[in-house]
Amino acid sequence: MVLAQASLQLNLMPLPASVQPGAGQWIIDSSFSVAMTGVQDPMLSAAVDKFVSQLSRETGIPFKRTAAQHGAALTIHAEHKSESTLELGEDESYELTVNPSDAQLTAPNPLGALHGLQTFLQLVEPTPTGFAVPVVTIKDAPRFPWRGMLIDVCRHYMPMDVLRRNVDGMAAVKMNVLHLHLSDNEGFRIESKKFPKLQEDGSNGSYYTQSEMHEFIAYAHDRGIRVVPEFDVPGHSRSWLVGYPELASGSGPYSLVSTVDPVMDPTQEATYKFLDKFIGEMAGLFPDAYFHIGGDEVNGAQWNANPKIQSFIHSHGMKNNQDLQAYFNQRLQKIVSKHHKTMIGWDEVLHPDLPKSILVQSWRGQQSLAAAAKQGYSGLLSYGYYLDLIWPASRHYAVDPLSGDAAALTPEEKSRILGGESCMWAELVTPESIDSRIWPRNAAIAERLWSPQEVQDVGSMYRRLSEVSWHLELVGLTHRSAPTEMLHRMFGSDDIASLRTLADVLEPVKDYARAESIKLPADNSVPLNHLVDAVSPESDVARDFRDLVQSYIQSGYKDHDAVEKIRALLTKWSVNDAKLHPQLEQSFLLKEVEPLSQDLSAVSAAGLAALDYLDKSETSPDAWRTLQLSLMTSAKTPKAEMLLIIVDPVQQLVDASGHVGRTP
Amino acid sequence: MVLAQASLQLNLMPLPASVQPGAGQWIIDSSFSVAMTGVQDPMLSAAVDKFVSQLSRETGIPFKRTAAQHGAALTIHAEHKSESTLELGEDESYELTVNPSDAQLTAPNPLGALHGLQTFLQLVEPTPTGFAVPVVTIKDAPRFPWRGMLIDVCRHYMPMDVLRRNVDGMAAVKMNVLHLHLSDNEGFRIESKKFPKLQEDGSNGSYYTQSEMHEFIAYAHDRGIRVVPEFDVPGHSRSWLVGYPELASGSGPYSLVSTVDPVMDPTQEATYKFLDKFIGEMAGLFPDAYFHIGGDEVNGAQWNANPKIQSFIHSHGMKNNQDLQAYFNQRLQKIVSKHHKTMIGWDEVLHPDLPKSILVQSWRGQQSLAAAAKQGYSGLLSYGYYLDLIWPASRHYAVDPLSGDAAALTPEEKSRILGGESCMWAELVTPESIDSRIWPRNAAIAERLWSPQEVQDVGSMYRRLSEVSWHLELVGLTHRSAPTEMLHRMFGSDDIASLRTLADVLEPVKDYARAESIKLPADNSVPLNHLVDAVSPESDVARDFRDLVQSYIQSGYKDHDAVEKIRALLTKWSVNDAKLHPQLEQSFLLKEVEPLSQDLSAVSAAGLAALDYLDKSETSPDAWRTLQLSLMTSAKTPKAEMLLIIVDPVQQLVDASGHVGRTP
Repeated sequence: MVLAQASLQLNLMPLPASVQPGAGQWIIDSSFSVAMTGVQDPMLSAAVDKFVSQLSRETGIPFKRTAAQHGAALTIHAEHKSESTLELGEDESYELTVNPSDAQLTAPNPLGALHGLQTFLQLVEPTPTGFAVPVVTIKDAPRFPWRGMLIDVCRHYMPMDVLRRNVDGMAAVKMNVLHLHLSDNEGFRIESKKFPKLQEDGSNGSYYTQSEMHEFIAYAHDRGIRVVPEFDVPGHSRSWLVGYPELASGSGPYSLVSTVDPVMDPTQEATYKFLDKFIGEMAGLFPDAYFHIGGDEVNGAQWNANPKIQSFIHSHGMKNNQDLQAYFNQRLQKIVSKHHKTMIGWDEVLHPDLPKSILVQSWRGQQSLAAAAKQGYSGLLSYGYYLDLIWPASRHYAVDPLSGDAAALTPEEKSRILGGESCMWAELVTPESIDSRIWPRNAAIAERLWSPQEVQDVGSMYRRLSEVSWHLELVGLTHRSAPTEMLHRMFGSDDIASLRTLADVLEPVKDYARAESIKLPADNSVPLNHLVDAVSPESDVARDFRDLVQSYIQSGYKDHDAVEKIRALLTKWSVNDAKLHPQLEQSFLLKEVEPLSQDLSAVSAAGLAALDYLDKSETSPDAWRTLQLSLMTSAKTPKAEMLLIIVDPVQQLVDASGHVGRTP
Repeated sequence: MVLAQASLQLNLMPLPASVQPGAGQWIIDSSFSVAMTGVQDPMLSAAVDKFVSQLSRETGIPFKRTAAQHGAALTIHAEHKSESTLELGEDESYELTVNPSDAQLTAPNPLGALHGLQTFLQLVEPTPTGFAVPVVTIKDAPRFPWRGMLIDVCRHYMPMDVLRRNVDGMAAVKMNVLHLHLSDNEGFRIESKKFPKLQEDGSNGSYYTQSEMHEFIAYAHDRGIRVVPEFDVPGHSRSWLVGYPELASGSGPYSLVSTVDPVMDPTQEATYKFLDKFIGEMAGLFPDAYFHIGGDEVNGAQWNANPKIQSFIHSHGMKNNQDLQAYFNQRLQKIVSKHHKTMIGWDEVLHPDLPKSILVQSWRGQQSLAAAAKQGYSGLLSYGYYLDLIWPASRHYAVDPLSGDAAALTPEEKSRILGGESCMWAELVTPESIDSRIWPRNAAIAERLWSPQEVQDVGSMYRRLSEVSWHLELVGLTHRSAPTEMLHRMFGSDDIASLRTLADVLEPVKDYARAESIKLPADNSVPLNHLVDAVSPESDVARDFRDLVQSYIQSGYKDHDAVEKIRALLTKWSVNDAKLHPQLEQSFLLKEVEPLSQDLSAVSAAGLAALDYLDKSETSPDAWRTLQLSLMTSAKTPKAEMLLIIVDPVQQLVDASGHVGRTP
């Protein structure tokens, strides 16, 4: 794909559908101005103001938005006005043409123009002659119309400023749906005026008022982002039942600090009356056409234990709890539909009795998604996009909504797969650490959902990801600055250099390993202030080191540049514990890190010794290697919920030292 | 001073008046709670909420403010309620007693309790057994009642979030007055409803609305900080005259982008009518008892050129322009007083005809301040506290309001010196860089104004300053994070390690050198996006290096620990240019830095060679030293508005190599 190859050179993420590079560049200096032609649109006008102010942040040049003069301008033209509510499937395309002294951005809709402005911002770079944008023609449109992120605000409440800065980050990488997981066992996070005990008894005081939410939805709208609310029923509903125990299938009382996993009672009419009133209220607050009712992981215990419910199942000719949930979902779907919304639910809601208009969000995988599409349901993929699992960006990047079983679908069935959503489940994140769990990895998922399916070069992705990462801090995110402060705090000292050296080669354990090991209390009130909370989900330093070792080995130990860099890193690491160890002892939070610090230095010393053998083309003694490999095995064991990520490449060096030509 | 010695061990800034250390510590964990006894006070209650939330930031433990239980608590007791307006000279004292399992904070007024809470926050540190506060008894009260900072929002407008985070920083170091320089030639920054052309024509659209300011004053009040407005008249007033040229002494029209330095016409009654109405309006908006009228640097050109004004001078028996300004100030003082405010002005307002009730703020020095005090005027020192001069913290720290001429005053005269104010004049700072120009150095000035005069240990100050610095980022300031983003931006790349190495040993040129060299346009609209804008006013790395060199030389070249560290630094620097140089060429903003990068590596190489001579106790050849010293001389020349700060200590090494015993 020739065009994508050209675009790989640019620092764009997501990559555009088509890039036609030209020669030269347009210098962006104080004379820069913006001209708008086409429709007058308040959303676009606000976006241009934000663009100008972000351009100032990206350059340090104090731009004011002024009318274009003397032709030196970015001309923005949108054909149609935007609707007051953003809609799924709106034409989001745009064309951006940069010439040596001006540029044109055209789009059918303001939404496309917003995306084009983000592309323009990413193109601005310092060059030998000034900040500049390369001469280029970009024709761009998203591959999927639904490119979302879920933020769970229940397990840990996230103040509005967290949501706002993340919406800014989403807009920067052209995501367009923020899915707010607003109720779960651990908290009910939005004010209901009709049922005030929901937030009063169910939130510990941490919830969004309706006026805050109203303002926030407008904020997101101005950035081209739809806000889809999720109220998870009938399971995951303990927080509802603290104030309204009569909705439950078992007897209360319920409390936020208990571990009970109750379920609403789908056999009583009162439940539907409550939900009708509640959904009616929320349908007024959230303008989006979609309404998520959760529906996942219904724990059957209360249903099994309630004779009235069991007799309802039998008397209605149902076979089991799944049928009962389907009955509940059918009733719920009618209510949602009555309030002019389209229902979304997780995989489990899928049941032939539900109308094809609903949307299924799959946390189970492409197989489940494909099955739904075959039955005529529309779907979204979230399997593979769970940010809380602390996977490397490359692993998320490899997940495609139309791969696996979905690849075999007919074009019509494929068109039912609307896109996907990354998910930030919040058991183990706080307002302080959440950005570092979302970003920059989320940008790789954003690219998967926006860019052509063929865009798959992992090396290019990582190169561009590291560039987009610091740009995202300029947008207001704190994924880099906040962890630095956390290191200072746990160290209790200003000089964190040696702690940083260690932290830079550690990663948190993966999947649910940490959640299982720390045994979260029901209200998640454990301090998340350990080193594992401050280290990056993915170690850039370790990845670079691994690449160096690869290229050294592949060069037949001849890549001198690589070996020098490898030696410098191993040397730094090998002496780090001597400096760091006494300091670790001073902080109760860091004592647990001592074995990792020892491992880093010991493993690095082994790596240096292996390099010496390789340098001299001398085969290392078997006994020595055996000893080192047992050190490696022990160093690979998770400690303090973290993994030392450089062990594998060092082990490769040790292995390699057993295969070089000459025996000593 | 025994007590101060003990307190030097703690990470407190400013140091308390009295510290009595005890044995042991109180562990701060999730069981921490706060109990309030004494008066119910809304300001104190809000402060306790903020304290609890800041304690969470300082520990990562999710505290909720809950009533004390089981006696494990910080008990806070304030005797009297706070007034709705903060007042100068209020008793700000407090006593804090920390025991092994609880603590008591008592204060006559809520304001003292606020200070005590800040002290408590600074005492919290990670220890081997948990976050803890040492057992200690602190009795504290400020040395001066007026501990202020001026922020100039005219030369560069500072949005409210900049002011808010700086108020938070001030509160953390117990400053209590924010002086807002609200009008100057370059901008009029507050909405007047009576004279709307002031902000409409005089601000380029960047000004505070009255409702924003009202809200901000409440924000500052809740943090124990008074807001004193300054409207600089009759000079420094071009921004007024854009909309109201009839107030000027010369004919208009005036514009924000011209360099004219006009003066109001003090001979026409219309000027006083205008000021009366305006000051009346502002006196209602700003509740503080003080009102600053500027009065500095009146440029006589327009008065000299206006025959009507000259004839007024003669007909009223005045000798010169100074007498005319005194007449203006007298008239103004009556207006300010009529609106129930006490007038403040800069040195120049001092004139025997003015009542003793006014307050004089001295930018000229202790001599001027002492002269005023002798005449019965109260005063504030700002001379020596100009943050925009980019001095090291130690230089500000050495400036005492009661030193120099003021030291010879009688106790009564001394009592008229109420304190001082640091000044952040904003010609060369933006919202992005201002924090890094204020902090952490401002904390050293805060200590000078709060702590006993005997607190003068510079080594201790720097040790504590670096600790308070990262705490201030947890408070919300950006003095460390923002410059990092600026480096990324000018480099256009994620990997800034080698640029950082260089930046860490550079400082901006001092005093007014930069302002003079860049020739600011009248509206200051130049990009402040160069390396000089991102390097710290004071290089910690260079100061540490200088100390290492000192101790190595003083040890008779025997301090092996020092010499190893010196060699490591010099080695790193000596190879830095090879890495950095090709990257500098890629950015127009960094080309100017190339000579500094070369100098760093060349000077470091000379330092390494000198170390070799010293190591071998071999006298270096005279010719070699001559050559190196000419390199040093050239390396000391400012380049790109910056100074390479490591040259002097390297030169000491080179010099020393000429004096060691043995000739080769």
